[in-house]
Amino acid sequence: MASIRRLVLDVLKPVEVATVSFARELSDLDGVDATAVRLVETDREVQNVTLVVEGEAVDFERVEACIESLGGTLHSVDEVVCGEFVPEEHVAHADATWLR
Amino acid sequence: MASIRRLVLDVLKPVEVATVSFARELSDLDGVDATAVRLVETDREVQNVTLVVEGEAVDFERVEACIESLGGTLHSVDEVVCGEFVPEEHVAHADATWLR
Amino acid sequence: MASIRRLVLDVLKPVEVATVSFARELSDLDGVDATAVRLVETDREVQNVTLVVEGEAVDFERVEACIESLGGTLHSVDEVVCGEFVPEEHVAHADATWLR
Amino acid sequence: MASIRRLVLDVLKPVEVATVSFARELSDLDGVDATAVRLVETDREVQNVTLVVEGEAVDFERVEACIESLGGTLHSVDEVVCGEFVPEEHVAHADATWLR
Amino acid sequence: MASIRRLVLDVLKPVEVATVSFARELSDLDGVDATAVRLVETDREVQNVTLVVEGEAVDFERVEACIESLGGTLHSVDEVVCGEFVPEEHVAHADATWLR
Amino acid sequence: MASIRRLVLDVLKPVEVATVSFARELSDLDGVDATAVRLVETDREVQNVTLVVEGEAVDFERVEACIESLGGTLHSVDEVVCGEFVPEEHVAHADATWLR
Amino acid sequence: MASIRRLVLDVLKPVEVATVSFARELSDLDGVDATAVRLVETDREVQNVTLVVEGEAVDFERVEACIESLGGTLHSVDEVVCGEFVPEEHVAHADATWLR
Repeated sequence: MASIRRLVLDVLKPVEVATVSFARELSDLDGVDATAVRLVETDREVQNVTLVVEGEAVDFERVEACIESLGGTLHSVDEVVCGEFVPEEHVAHADATWLR
Repeated sequence: MASIRRLVLDVLKPVEVATVSFARELSDLDGVDATAVRLVETDREVQNVTLVVEGEAVDFERVEACIESLGGTLHSVDEVVCGEFVPEEHVAHADATWLR
Repeated sequence: MASIRRLVLDVLKPVEVATVSFARELSDLDGVDATAVRLVETDREVQNVTLVVEGEAVDFERVEACIESLGGTLHSVDEVVCGEFVPEEHVAHADATWLR
Repeated sequence: MASIRRLVLDVLKPVEVATVSFARELSDLDGVDATAVRLVETDREVQNVTLVVEGEAVDFERVEACIESLGGTLHSVDEVVCGEFVPEEHVAHADATWLR
Repeated sequence: MASIRRLVLDVLKPVEVATVSFARELSDLDGVDATAVRLVETDREVQNVTLVVEGEAVDFERVEACIESLGGTLHSVDEVVCGEFVPEEHVAHADATWLR
Repeated sequence: MASIRRLVLDVLKPVEVATVSFARELSDLDGVDATAVRLVETDREVQNVTLVVEGEAVDFERVEACIESLGGTLHSVDEVVCGEFVPEEHVAHADATWLR
Repeated sequence: MASIRRLVLDVLKPVEVATVSFARELSDLDGVDATAVRLVETDREVQNVTLVVEGEAVDFERVEACIESLGGTLHSVDEVVCGEFVPEEHVAHADATWLR
C-alpha cells in the first residue's frame, strides 16, 4: 500500500496546550520527518491551526491519536499526498465555471 | 499512443470515505508515481476534492474505476498532460477579450 | 523557416469527446513532445479548453486538422513561440496607458 | 554600438494574417533567436498582440519592416533591452507617489 | 524529543527598546542560527513585531525568557516547525468552505 | 568610494526620440553592462519610461547627461544599488502602519 | 554578540541630497557589502525612502550616524536580521485574527 508523504490537517486545539507541544509530539512519531504548525485563527479558549506533517511513511491513525491525546480535534483533512513526490499544485483557470 | 503524465480531476466524494483512502488507492495503481488529494469544499454528506495524479503512464480508465469503487463521482477533467514533460502554464493576457 | 516551439490555442470541444483523447492524439503528432489540455469553462454540450502544445517542430496545420478530426473548433491562437527557447513573459507596467 | 537583446512591441495585425506567420518570419531574421507572439485583444478585423523578440543582435529596422510587410502596425515599443543580460524588473513601491 | 527548527512569534515590544537588541540577543541564544525581527505596526509606546527564529535546536523557554527580559510580551505563537526541514506552505484552496 | 551597480530612473522622453536610442546610448557608456527601457505611460508628445541601468561601475552623471542629450528629463531616482550585489527586496508587512 | 546581517530602515531625506550619495556613503561603511535605496514617496522638500543595508557585520550606530550626516532622519527600523542567514519570510495566514 502506497505510503503517505504529506498530510495537511485543519485542527482545533485548546489555547492552553502549547503549539510547540503539537509540533514536537507529531515530529516524534515514526515515519514523520518534519512538522509545521501554523496559527490561522484564535479565540479565548480555542485556536484553529493548520498542521503540515511530512515524512517517508506518515501513519494517519497515529497522527490523529496524537492530536486527540493533546486535546485537539481534527476538523478536516485538507490535503493528502501519497507516493514518491508532491505533485505540482493545480492552478484552476478562471474558475472552471459551470454554465448549466 | 502517448502516455498520460498528469491528470487533474474534480471529484465529489462521500464524507465518510476517508481522503487518505483515495490518495492511497490511486497511488497503488500501475503507472502512478504520486497522488495529491486536496479539499476544495465540504458539505454534511459530500466533499468536493481536487485529485492530482502523476506518473509515467497513468491509466485513465483505472483511475476512474478506482474513484467509483470508493463511492466517488468524477465531476470534471480539469487537466490532462501527455508526453515527456508538463508544459509551462499559459498566463492569459488581460483576458484576451473579444470585442465583437 | 523557424520551427514552432510552443502553441497555445483556445478551443471549443464537444463534452462527449474526452479531454484525454485531445491530449493523446495531439501528443502523438510528429514534432510534439508534450501537450496539456486545461478546462476553462464547461456547458451542457460544449467545453472551452486551453491547449498548450510544445515540441522541437510543432506542425500548426496538423494540430488544427487533429483538433477538427476530434470535433473541436479552434477559437483563437493565444500564443505562438518560434526559435530556440521561450522568451520571458513581458509584465506590462501600469498598463502602458494612452493619454491621447 | 550596444546590440539589442530583447524587444517587446505592441502591434495591431489583421485577423486574416496568421499569428504563426508573424512568429515565424520574425524568428527567421538575422540576430533573432526566439520570438513569442501573444494575443491581447481581438476584434472582427484586427488583433492586438504583444511581440517579444530576443536574440544576440536584434535589428529594430528589420523587425519593423517585417511587421509592416505582414500588414501589421507597430503601436508602441513597450520594452527595449541592450547589453549583456536582461536587468531584473523594478517593482515600484507603493507607486512612488508625488504629493506635490 | 524532536528539536524546534523554526519559530514565528507575534510580539509586542516597548518603542524605546531597540529592535536591534531583540535580534541580537535572540541570535546569541544556544541553538539559534539566525533571527529576523520585522515591524508590523507601531504606536506611540508599543511596537508589534514578528520574530522569526531559526536554528538546529531552538529552545522555546529561553526565547520567551529573552523576550520578557527585554520588556517584550509574547502575543501569539504563529508558527512552530520541528524536525529535519521546513515543510512547504499549504495554499488553501478557495477557502475550504463549509456549506453546513 | 563604492560603485553604483544598479540605477532605476523615472524619465520623461519626447515621443519622437526612439526608445531604442535611449537603451543603446546608455548601454554604450563605460561601466554599463545592460540597460532596459520600459514604457509606463504615453501621451501625444511625451512618454514616461522606466530606465534600469546595471553594471560594475555605473557613472550617474554620465547617465544623466546621456538622458538630457537625447531630450529626456530625469523625473525621479527610484532606486540606487551600490556594492557587491543587489540586496533582496523588502516586502513591507501590512504596511507598517503608524497608529499615532 | 551576533552581528547584524541585514537592516531595513524607513528614512526621510531632503530632496536636494542625492539618493546616490546615501547609497554610496552607506556602502562605504565597514561591514557593509551592499546597499539599496528605494524611493517610496516624494514631496516638494522631502523624500521617503527605504534603505536596505546588507553585510557580514553591519554597524547600526554608524549607519544611523551616516544617515544623519547626510541630513536624513531615521523614521523606523522595519527589519533587522542577525546571525548566519536571512530566515524565510513568514506568510501570515488569513491574518491570524483574534475573535475575542
